[in-house]
Amino acid sequence: MADKPRIPAGTRDFSPIVVLRRQFILGHIERVFKRYGFQPLETPAMELLSVLTGKYGDEGDQLMYKILNSGDYLSDISAEERANIGYKALTPKIAERALRYDLTVPFARYVAMNAGQLTLPFKRYQMQNVWRADRPQKGRYREFMQCDADVVGSTSLVYEAEIVAMLDQVFRALGFTGFAIKLNHRGVLAALARKVGADGREIDLCVAIDKLDKIGQEGVEKELLGKGFDEQQLQQLDPVFKFVPHTVAESLAFLRVFLAGDEPGLAAVEELELVLKMAKVLGVESDNVQLDLTLARGLNYYTGCIFEAQILNAGIGSVSGGGRYDNLTEVFGVKNMSGVGFSFGIDRLYDAMDALQLFPPDLKAAPQVLVTQFEAGTLGYSLLVTKQLRDLGVEAELYPEPAKMQKQLKYADNRGIHWVIVAGPDEAEKQTLAIKDLFSGTQISILLQDLGTWVKEGL
Amino acid sequence: MADKPRIPAGTRDFSPIVVLRRQFILGHIERVFKRYGFQPLETPAMELLSVLTGKYGDEGDQLMYKILNSGDYLSDISAEERANIGYKALTPKIAERALRYDLTVPFARYVAMNAGQLTLPFKRYQMQNVWRADRPQKGRYREFMQCDADVVGSTSLVYEAEIVAMLDQVFRALGFTGFAIKLNHRGVLAALARKVGADGREIDLCVAIDKLDKIGQEGVEKELLGKGFDEQQLQQLDPVFKFVPHTVAESLAFLRVFLAGDEPGLAAVEELELVLKMAKVLGVESDNVQLDLTLARGLNYYTGCIFEAQILNAGIGSVSGGGRYDNLTEVFGVKNMSGVGFSFGIDRLYDAMDALQLFPPDLKAAPQVLVTQFEAGTLGYSLLVTKQLRDLGVEAELYPEPAKMQKQLKYADNRGIHWVIVAGPDEAEKQTLAIKDLFSGTQISILLQDLGTWVKEGL
Repeated sequence: MADKPRIPAGTRDFSPIVVLRRQFILGHIERVFKRYGFQPLETPAMELLSVLTGKYGDEGDQLMYKILNSGDYLSDISAEERANIGYKALTPKIAERALRYDLTVPFARYVAMNAGQLTLPFKRYQMQNVWRADRPQKGRYREFMQCDADVVGSTSLVYEAEIVAMLDQVFRALGFTGFAIKLNHRGVLAALARKVGADGREIDLCVAIDKLDKIGQEGVEKELLGKGFDEQQLQQLDPVFKFVPHTVAESLAFLRVFLAGDEPGLAAVEELELVLKMAKVLGVESDNVQLDLTLARGLNYYTGCIFEAQILNAGIGSVSGGGRYDNLTEVFGVKNMSGVGFSFGIDRLYDAMDALQLFPPDLKAAPQVLVTQFEAGTLGYSLLVTKQLRDLGVEAELYPEPAKMQKQLKYADNRGIHWVIVAGPDEAEKQTLAIKDLFSGTQISILLQDLGTWVKEGL
Repeated sequence: MADKPRIPAGTRDFSPIVVLRRQFILGHIERVFKRYGFQPLETPAMELLSVLTGKYGDEGDQLMYKILNSGDYLSDISAEERANIGYKALTPKIAERALRYDLTVPFARYVAMNAGQLTLPFKRYQMQNVWRADRPQKGRYREFMQCDADVVGSTSLVYEAEIVAMLDQVFRALGFTGFAIKLNHRGVLAALARKVGADGREIDLCVAIDKLDKIGQEGVEKELLGKGFDEQQLQQLDPVFKFVPHTVAESLAFLRVFLAGDEPGLAAVEELELVLKMAKVLGVESDNVQLDLTLARGLNYYTGCIFEAQILNAGIGSVSGGGRYDNLTEVFGVKNMSGVGFSFGIDRLYDAMDALQLFPPDLKAAPQVLVTQFEAGTLGYSLLVTKQLRDLGVEAELYPEPAKMQKQLKYADNRGIHWVIVAGPDEAEKQTLAIKDLFSGTQISILLQDLGTWVKEGL
């Protein structure tokens, strides 16, 4: 007997109920994206290694899955070279392609390839898998879906406000009541660094401040000292450490005072204020929005507003992030393509929905109705009823062979099917149907001709 | 300046309109699958090479995309071995995983892994990409989507009938009027071979008969002679060559006479008859169904009914195929798992829809409405209108910055947006909206408070 087969570590089969739940989440996200004018784009799973290499740092280059060239990939490599070459030098000789590592680089590649033909601003969303050879652990997979929306070719802050509104809409559509949409701005962080005489060192500063929650002010100060900040700078930062803003208005007021005189810093504060004002008109409740000075994600990349969102009381990290970038496509030869985008983490949203029991209970990996089958003579009647149900839009299954009632009911029960429609010899003769509600245990009898009415009113 | 980036040969970017059209096709297929009680399954893009190897013959093993192990994949291979080893022997040492080559083997692997927990019969559909290192050519890609539905764990012919009905439903839902659903049966083919004293040689026989269209009776006879059939056998086959059935009833009658006395052959004919009878009750018009004795796809694999479907007048080959198999999972250690399934070729369906201009004209890669933006003072009004449209379920976009009317209209036109809602200073003051229909060139003016009515009645 063959060994029981396995799947690769870090990958998953999605059983029917899991697929349906993921589709529920993705469907809501897609609906919101479309309402905001975003259009779907899909790119190939494989990209040329030359397109991907160097875009994600050394770690990314390591974690990218490379695909062996087909045919005799060794034919151009001499025996001597093969014996001596290291794997890093060998890889580009035997692998021209790699699996998509994120959706941003393929998007940039698409925009660069189609620059000139795209009507700008170009708004796209993309919901596809990416692959990373990371060490698998709880919540971290080697194949996982990213779900991005970006708009490129405009610097309008309307889009930042719309991203805040889309986050709000998606979370509410999925049934979350407690969530936090956090904003920050690269310009504010740069001004903070300037303020303490550490011009251009906002990344060091932020990486440390970001740990305030975990290691406290003392810990952060120790880390900053280790990075060459001095006591005087720490003292200047004290108000930032101490300030626990309660509302966006308080945060903005604090920043206006703290950054007084720093024009670019104040301009960034004004941008944040405008974004929040527009988001409010778009229906976002201010309770769900925070300014977070410690928010420092993607600082190598983002140049304006930065976003992050969390679901409260679900025991998981951030479920979304994004920001404004200035230069998506320069690496592919197309300059001045500013844009802003964000991304949902589908696995984390799934876990949060699961933890908070937000999936609709009627989301079931089963048809709504099972139609019975008792004997060859009434198979036609059972088939007809099944057909009529489907024509009425009902998900219906016919029990595949004649069997005792008990067996058919047990099958329906195992599958989690709600209704069993009995279409046996008695029913066929009288052109009636007995309908069992397996959830409530009740049963009714109707005329076949009233099936449409039952579907409309009873199902 | 960087080189213009490329994508790997044989792969495609799907622009927004293409994604929407593919979603249109997939959505209809998925709806039909669900109505028939099928549930979605998704498996990983990567499978262990050991799971895939040997399942698709030598050619498949060659065309499978293997994934380089991550880290130093050469570390366990001595310099001497590296210098001397051939690529075929090296591959399994440096690649543990490969990309999915079809959806059938991953499905079999899933069923085997979960045998005992699945309620049988298990009906699943799966719509995912597969990858093959084939030579790219028109209509043949290295990444393409397969769209399978299978039911395993039952030998009921109800499922064969339902497959015929699903084919019929999908084609009609997509708007095709001329299509042919072709049926055959392995048992009929085996009986034909026995009939002419070529027991067990139905594959040779069918491969030749299959070419009747292209090379004529003479050509087929020449090919059969080349394969060791003799003149007497050809004479016995003459009625098959000559028989051009017009209806299913005529075909069945012909087979009953031709196979008289061959019990297993007649049993297969009866199976076909029952399947067709049930399909008729399920609403399939007999005009769209044919028995095709030359249909011989997948004979190494299929054991009962065989299906194939074609769209007429679209200049493409078959868009669907499938059949009954006896033993899906034995290779993974689970015996007696009979099933029946079929698959749609999405790329071909797309081409057929395109050739026959069946995509709905309102399927557009653009929001329905563009709301104008003229000045900072009325940005709030424009935002509010945009928000109200979205709350009403409309796909709406706000022009991102203040601009002249002409420029905003041109943008809407380039995007193919149907309506432009003008929300300028005049409109803001009077709480009205001017609505331009860019398709008809007409314009109306409404009160803001009547926006909901317009959406319901005018949009």
